[in-house]
Amino acid sequence: MPNRKAGKFIVGVDLGGTNIVVGALSEDGSREYAMRSEPTRAGQGADAVVDRMVRMIDTVIAETTAATGAKRNACLGVGVGAPGPLDREAGVVLTTPNLGWTNFPLRTVIAERVGLQATLDNDANCATLGEWWLGAARGGRNVVGMTIGTGIGGGLILDGRLYHGASDVAGEIGHTTIDVTGRRCKCGNYGCLEAYASGPSIAERAREAMGDDTSSRLYAMVEGDLSKLTAATVYAAAEAGDDTALDVVRETARFLGTGIANLLNVFNPDVVVIAGGVTQAGDSLFEPMRREVRRRAFRAAVESCRIVPGALPGTAGVVGAVATFRQQALGAV
Amino acid sequence: MPNRKAGKFIVGVDLGGTNIVVGALSEDGSREYAMRSEPTRAGQGADAVVDRMVRMIDTVIAETTAATGAKRNACLGVGVGAPGPLDREAGVVLTTPNLGWTNFPLRTVIAERVGLQATLDNDANCATLGEWWLGAARGGRNVVGMTIGTGIGGGLILDGRLYHGASDVAGEIGHTTIDVTGRRCKCGNYGCLEAYASGPSIAERAREAMGDDTSSRLYAMVEGDLSKLTAATVYAAAEAGDDTALDVVRETARFLGTGIANLLNVFNPDVVVIAGGVTQAGDSLFEPMRREVRRRAFRAAVESCRIVPGALPGTAGVVGAVATFRQQALGAV
Repeated sequence: MPNRKAGKFIVGVDLGGTNIVVGALSEDGSREYAMRSEPTRAGQGADAVVDRMVRMIDTVIAETTAATGAKRNACLGVGVGAPGPLDREAGVVLTTPNLGWTNFPLRTVIAERVGLQATLDNDANCATLGEWWLGAARGGRNVVGMTIGTGIGGGLILDGRLYHGASDVAGEIGHTTIDVTGRRCKCGNYGCLEAYASGPSIAERAREAMGDDTSSRLYAMVEGDLSKLTAATVYAAAEAGDDTALDVVRETARFLGTGIANLLNVFNPDVVVIAGGVTQAGDSLFEPMRREVRRRAFRAAVESCRIVPGALPGTAGVVGAVATFRQQALGAV
Repeated sequence: MPNRKAGKFIVGVDLGGTNIVVGALSEDGSREYAMRSEPTRAGQGADAVVDRMVRMIDTVIAETTAATGAKRNACLGVGVGAPGPLDREAGVVLTTPNLGWTNFPLRTVIAERVGLQATLDNDANCATLGEWWLGAARGGRNVVGMTIGTGIGGGLILDGRLYHGASDVAGEIGHTTIDVTGRRCKCGNYGCLEAYASGPSIAERAREAMGDDTSSRLYAMVEGDLSKLTAATVYAAAEAGDDTALDVVRETARFLGTGIANLLNVFNPDVVVIAGGVTQAGDSLFEPMRREVRRRAFRAAVESCRIVPGALPGTAGVVGAVATFRQQALGAV
């Protein structure tokens, strides 16, 4: 829509271990001017990744000014979401296993390279804020956001504000124990929710459930190479009626329902919004999961909460990065 | 200190299933003018309990005016803490198993009977706020309060404010699952922290651990009547070196440590303050509990948090009720 009301806009960046997504939204979030995604290629090192981010930001700004007729100075700034842990005040990425960065001053680097003000927040916080601002958690006052993929991340909006905790660790929902004597988790703890219900954990439980049973549809689907088995395979097999896969999906719903019931009893949120690959299972996962939550949590907490899939797949992080910029740099609520 | 600076004061009421505690503090909390405790005698019915509360409030006001030389109108009002669930906005106690009340408009009744403004909040919230205002959690910005007794209750102060959640259920720490296939809890759920680490649960686990072994010191301490066994018996026997009791205390520390590690990973608090009878075990409980937390929670969350026993045994609820009155009625922070 060229030349249509050349208002201010904000760029959001979602830096992930696999992809970088960059987009531009109007200041009030009512319009999306651009949205691009490229592979991160973290193995090329921090400099190459930053170069790619800067190029994508410049492209997105150019696309936006071309579309709106606005000048480059109509861009108010850049909000960046990155994997934690972070020192948010200093704008520094402390360590990221997926990127291999240590003490990287990402906020300053981006601001200087792009020549615009920048903010930095945790990617899971951004995704939650995005769903709250423009997605499935709109209107909530107390929102728990979960992203279930390779890991299980979380973000918290409490009394209408992003909650970070004492040292920006808050919201590590995946690393809460649901079985005190349970499975070893990558974090070193035992019985974490993530050790049961992340994508790789779902695949692992399916491999265990299959055992030596080569008659399972799962076995055929990966042509006998069990290392190829993923959560997506499990969902597809369950969809096709495979008993082993159905059991694994049911158990996944039970584990997730237990973890979410804990969140309901402690946070008493009005929305739990769940994003990530695992939600592709749709109602076959959500319905038994909601049943498990009802079985476990206090009725008053259940009645005041809706548990919904995210409405912004792939872009919640960018939208939320724009929202954090609004909050941190512009003081918007 | 008669006639010394006749300032304003606030009355706090902690209505419990066993005792009613009523006290008066100076408006800024720097002085305690009176503190009284009487049995609740809930079996006599709501009217009798309210009569007792009103009489105690009047006595405490009279003691305060006598001590300070102030007039009755120096009393700014009454903060009440009561067992939940509550409708806080309406000032109504919805149901209390321990008192047998249903939809009781406690705030209005107290305000009218005493002739002063009143506020109402959850007892666990009040206890947490009390420890934060004048006790062991002073200076914290994100505080988790736990009270471990007959049950395990909790209160949350997040970003410097009491957090209630969407329907005043928030903070039900005792009813978070730490073992997905675990013990049945009174709340209907399975594997709740409370089913392992409340006073009665500790006693029950000790009875189970003893089995038929009549040689245990625990057995002698209750003269063979296992129904008399309490958490206090277990602590005393552990103190005296009884192996079964020591095992039970160690296991209790492990369960509590797991539950607290979950809170650290999700809330990232700067203080966890623990009150209630169970804390009488002191370091023999706190040290292994802290070890378990360190084993399970993220290092950044552990490093930014202190886990401490409450500093206001018996009076945290009253102090916190005064603090909620200050916040709700006077707009103080």
